[in-house]
Amino acid sequence: MDGRSVLERCDLLATCTEEPGRITRPFASDAMRHAHQYVEDWMRQAGMTARRDNIGNLHARYEGSGDATLLLGSHLDSVRDAGRYDGPLGVMVAIAAVQRLHDAGKQLPFAVEVLAFADEEGLRFGSTYLGSRAVAGRFDPRDLERTDSRGVAMAEAVQAFGGDPSKIGEDRWSGDRPLGYIEVHIEQGPVLESLGLPVGVVSAIAGQSRFEITFTGEAGHAGTVPMAQRRDALVGASIFVEAVDAVRENPDLVATVGRLSVRPGAANVIPGEVNLSLDVRSPDDETREVECEHLLKLAGEIARRRNLELTVSPVSERPAVGCSPRMIALLLKAIGEGAVEVPSGAGHDGVYMSEITEIGMLFVRCKGGISHNPAESVTAGDVAVAIDVLGRFLQLLAEE
Amino acid sequence: MDGRSVLERCDLLATCTEEPGRITRPFASDAMRHAHQYVEDWMRQAGMTARRDNIGNLHARYEGSGDATLLLGSHLDSVRDAGRYDGPLGVMVAIAAVQRLHDAGKQLPFAVEVLAFADEEGLRFGSTYLGSRAVAGRFDPRDLERTDSRGVAMAEAVQAFGGDPSKIGEDRWSGDRPLGYIEVHIEQGPVLESLGLPVGVVSAIAGQSRFEITFTGEAGHAGTVPMAQRRDALVGASIFVEAVDAVRENPDLVATVGRLSVRPGAANVIPGEVNLSLDVRSPDDETREVECEHLLKLAGEIARRRNLELTVSPVSERPAVGCSPRMIALLLKAIGEGAVEVPSGAGHDGVYMSEITEIGMLFVRCKGGISHNPAESVTAGDVAVAIDVLGRFLQLLAEE
Repeated sequence: MDGRSVLERCDLLATCTEEPGRITRPFASDAMRHAHQYVEDWMRQAGMTARRDNIGNLHARYEGSGDATLLLGSHLDSVRDAGRYDGPLGVMVAIAAVQRLHDAGKQLPFAVEVLAFADEEGLRFGSTYLGSRAVAGRFDPRDLERTDSRGVAMAEAVQAFGGDPSKIGEDRWSGDRPLGYIEVHIEQGPVLESLGLPVGVVSAIAGQSRFEITFTGEAGHAGTVPMAQRRDALVGASIFVEAVDAVRENPDLVATVGRLSVRPGAANVIPGEVNLSLDVRSPDDETREVECEHLLKLAGEIARRRNLELTVSPVSERPAVGCSPRMIALLLKAIGEGAVEVPSGAGHDGVYMSEITEIGMLFVRCKGGISHNPAESVTAGDVAVAIDVLGRFLQLLAEE
Repeated sequence: MDGRSVLERCDLLATCTEEPGRITRPFASDAMRHAHQYVEDWMRQAGMTARRDNIGNLHARYEGSGDATLLLGSHLDSVRDAGRYDGPLGVMVAIAAVQRLHDAGKQLPFAVEVLAFADEEGLRFGSTYLGSRAVAGRFDPRDLERTDSRGVAMAEAVQAFGGDPSKIGEDRWSGDRPLGYIEVHIEQGPVLESLGLPVGVVSAIAGQSRFEITFTGEAGHAGTVPMAQRRDALVGASIFVEAVDAVRENPDLVATVGRLSVRPGAANVIPGEVNLSLDVRSPDDETREVECEHLLKLAGEIARRRNLELTVSPVSERPAVGCSPRMIALLLKAIGEGAVEVPSGAGHDGVYMSEITEIGMLFVRCKGGISHNPAESVTAGDVAVAIDVLGRFLQLLAEE
């Protein structure tokens, strides 16, 4: 199995889609069923026994000489109009690494289990990480009542896909504590590309705070209200957007206003209300918390200075998940000289897997840092490096 | 006729609407026909002879001892979900002033003609000033092909309302050059309120420049793209919005970004494109032109500094229309001590009427400067002042 073969398998999975001409592979869909036919076949070719759990994850096991288990994995579902690598690449690289063991007739002192998660993106039911949450024992049965855009409840969808919705609790990892969970994933960012490196080791999955912020002023006629008498909500919001951009001074932070809407929103009316989203992430929780406090204080000052009202609603908060120092060290060693650590600004299945074992992640360079987009692109050479690194990692772990 | 009676008439006109519970009185509608029944009646009560022209304006004439004519007027149509005073108040105050002449059995050395324009807001056909354009001989026959939201062409609408669409050219003022055109209108701004004055004299109707501006950067994952590598279109646009707000240093200018939309517009995606409107107004054309040039240059600098692309599309440009110094002087004298001049940031029928005669405008204080809104509010006391001022103006003009 070389990098080229892995890319070809990703191409085949890209044909498993709900929308002709685009890649859209939701949880428990016919497109996913189609993908499973391929993936189960590849798992078996690599000498693994495969089974599907109730939520719809594939579990494939390559036995070792001992009882311990190392988990490898990623997800098979996609966003709407997705690229072909976010998720599937990690599953394919894991299978390729096992295929090499199988081809060499090699057995490790531990079993390797490849997990192909049923849902990470949350496209169909708006609830992310269904697959890894089930394995971590963190599936919330109330989610079974969620309905998709056609009104189908999750419980029905699970059943139609062959699972028993009442038994998702049994999908929880039930053996001894695994040795670890390793996930290969495209970087979804431009750092490796800018460093000229094919792969990098993830230091931590960043924590994230999200807020909804509203500046309220007073709408008015754009021709008749003198500037000095205006309470223009957009001017206040704009000053805030600039303040958010100023987090650039701290390399451990990213902060984004991605959504901003103006009311009434007519060319000849002074904006009376602006609603915007704030997203702050950092691999260091304290850095993130301090910055959020600072930004919300600034928003208050801007509102006061501009005679606007301010409302702030916290939307979500997720602490950072550190990768295990042992897994990081082994992955760095597997890469060799010049290996770097990079934080992951995006969430991954490792967030939940960290609740049952120590985790490690290997990022693969992707063109322009683009993801969640048909333009996602990786090279066969970089994928070959990832397979090699994962193989050496398995060897290093076996030698410990 | 006192201020209270005028407000009651505005209340009655507010019942002439296309939408129960809201004031929506479009051009050539049943609601307008209903309004005409009232207005023609009031015109006749004031001793005037009334007729309707082809476009649908009412012309009511109170004869004088001489042949010259002074025009008074405003419009009877409204925006959607309008207030009750923008337009109708001017017609009602004009009729009230004539009613007082009639009640006193007084004849002026000139005739007074009250014009109740058929369309100023452009609600039905998206084409403003239909009424005053017809009277000024500036009606564009191509507009007859415009269709409303139900697919009815303007030509049909004119015919159904009783006009001959092929004869709108004949609506043009055909007598000797009128002595002038005087319009009473709510201020639609907060200046008189902040000065504590019931009325003010308009110095000029501001010129206006409108642009569509797009900043284009690159969308990306809000978690994974480091701040230093971002091309965030919203950050660039926000710096520009602040720059637009800085025109506040020049009291002769107003500038507004009233519409701003962000693409893709998701909380976890860096904005790749922002499209916004820019509206710049000034009673002084050179001031406006210099400022537009300055702001567009700034937009270019911001785009360069932030590695964004910039496109600018001019949407419209309208020069300022000065009120006649003679009309201004007479109106100021009619008000008496403490009278002020204020610019009009909004457009009015006077823009077109200035092509056939000298114009003057009297603004009436409105609560909070609010217009185009059901909350439009004026006091009977202020309206009484406006009727008195218009009466004294007629007297002063007669004495000249």
